[in-house]
Amino acid sequence: LPDETNAVTDCHSEPPKTIAIIGSGLIGQAWATVFLRAGMQVVLYDTAAGLAEQAKAQVIERMSEFAQFGLVTQETLGRSLTHIKLAETLEAAVATADYVQENGPEILDVKVALTREIDRFAAPGVVIGSSTSGITASRYSAAIKGRDRCLVVHPINPPHLVPLVEIVPAPWTAQTAVEDVNDLLTQVGQVPILLNREIDGFVVNRLQGALLREAFSLLDKGVASRRDIDKAISDGLGLRWSLMGPFETIHLNAPGGVSDYVRRFGPMYRDMFSDDPGAVDWETVVEGGLEADLTGERPVSEIAVGQKARDTALLHLLVQRAGKAIASSDQ
Amino acid sequence: LPDETNAVTDCHSEPPKTIAIIGSGLIGQAWATVFLRAGMQVVLYDTAAGLAEQAKAQVIERMSEFAQFGLVTQETLGRSLTHIKLAETLEAAVATADYVQENGPEILDVKVALTREIDRFAAPGVVIGSSTSGITASRYSAAIKGRDRCLVVHPINPPHLVPLVEIVPAPWTAQTAVEDVNDLLTQVGQVPILLNREIDGFVVNRLQGALLREAFSLLDKGVASRRDIDKAISDGLGLRWSLMGPFETIHLNAPGGVSDYVRRFGPMYRDMFSDDPGAVDWETVVEGGLEADLTGERPVSEIAVGQKARDTALLHLLVQRAGKAIASSDQ
Repeated sequence: LPDETNAVTDCHSEPPKTIAIIGSGLIGQAWATVFLRAGMQVVLYDTAAGLAEQAKAQVIERMSEFAQFGLVTQETLGRSLTHIKLAETLEAAVATADYVQENGPEILDVKVALTREIDRFAAPGVVIGSSTSGITASRYSAAIKGRDRCLVVHPINPPHLVPLVEIVPAPWTAQTAVEDVNDLLTQVGQVPILLNREIDGFVVNRLQGALLREAFSLLDKGVASRRDIDKAISDGLGLRWSLMGPFETIHLNAPGGVSDYVRRFGPMYRDMFSDDPGAVDWETVVEGGLEADLTGERPVSEIAVGQKARDTALLHLLVQRAGKAIASSDQ
Repeated sequence: LPDETNAVTDCHSEPPKTIAIIGSGLIGQAWATVFLRAGMQVVLYDTAAGLAEQAKAQVIERMSEFAQFGLVTQETLGRSLTHIKLAETLEAAVATADYVQENGPEILDVKVALTREIDRFAAPGVVIGSSTSGITASRYSAAIKGRDRCLVVHPINPPHLVPLVEIVPAPWTAQTAVEDVNDLLTQVGQVPILLNREIDGFVVNRLQGALLREAFSLLDKGVASRRDIDKAISDGLGLRWSLMGPFETIHLNAPGGVSDYVRRFGPMYRDMFSDDPGAVDWETVVEGGLEADLTGERPVSEIAVGQKARDTALLHLLVQRAGKAIASSDQ
């Protein structure tokens, strides 16, 4: 979360940045919350003025929740009432923006037209990010004059509560645009990741899709009930995955780290998915750099230290769960 | 976690159950902790006496951690010192047990021989669970006299901190054995799930394998760095998955619930994995019972309520993360 002591509203630093949020549905509202939370100015625009007005009320409610949970100060909450503005026109929304986050419908023609309008009114050098989950910047920005400042900035639902954001540039997106968005997202407490090339589903939905694909298959085969498959994640794998990713997880799950893990369990996983024509050889990936990468961050000699840290973090999660169980049984 | 007020050590109820833990490595130690935590008696056995002695010290250390975190009382911690015993022989370990958890090596011949010995010494009706992740009960128990009391009871690493356990019976496992283990695990605060049939990797490792398979593929294709793929889970999907499983997640991610989600996003996921020869049609699964199951638990009219509950839980996670960030920056 943003460190408020470094907020850009400090009187000795530059004035707060202004972010244009185009489209005021759930995703637009969440983005507005993210930027307000960090002390920035937000201009909200939607095609019908009534929508943006309703959205503003929702955003203020979310800011109040953050304040209740101690995640923003009362000062930031108070400021947010004046820091969020509604624009009557797209031009007015975009004209003063330092960054534009577009949350239009997932329809190619609509997104092209909308991006063209934003590009027309935004000041030079202002980056235009899209929340799209399904249309790459290559497709919607190809014919845009300022296409070098267009890129996908894809959040996870709900964006104000899940910090990860995927940055997916087109081949023609300027490196400075990528860097600007990366810096901005980091500054507001999100966790940006960078895709080196465009791919359908990006990283997040491909990982989610891979899990869902197997979950649907297990259900279809009658291996377990829907509820039990859900529990396998929510009371099992998901606890570890809220602390570390899949590679970090397996690096800690064998005494010799990732290469040891793949040597021990690789054949089991290969047999599970033996009908996969596009299967990647895990040992090749391990030897091709994965092991060097993971051991560079955590040498095999420090695996036990990592396990200990993981276990302590899991203990904290258990305490939180036990507390919630007590709280809900109190009601 | 177990409710200590209902612990079986209450003087008006039956004496605490005795659990034999065969094999005292990390998994055996974690199982011992699980049963001691719930006030039960544990008898630990390993092939070399020194190993079990070391394991006992580790188990006590884990119990102390649970006490430090307020997850067991000082009474339970104190009792655990006398509730854990070491056995000199397999026979002595098993003879007085109400349940046996076997944690032997993942080698078929060894597991067959070990299970045969346990079956020989365990009292009639005592269930024999195996922690194996790779060998089905059909394979290791086929030639065992008491094979109807043998089944896989597979935990997630580390079992004392991750509650999920997979119960995987062989076709010949008695229904009473399945029920006994299910009751016992629930009593000690674990979360058991039941597999209706044996499948390589069971449910948990198939789900983990599906995610890993895509993660390795993305890394191999150079789509993103290892660190960014890990973040996509640990700062993204994993936060939601620590609260709810993949089906519950998508049921909340479209206004009309799971069928609406699959209508909107099914084609995107299908295109991602279009080379999968064994692909299941998600719409068929939805119409074949998944929608009825999920809406039975949460009707479409209550999706907004579910989203609100999810968001509140995510706020709690953010608070915990912010606290940890502050704590670690203090050091």
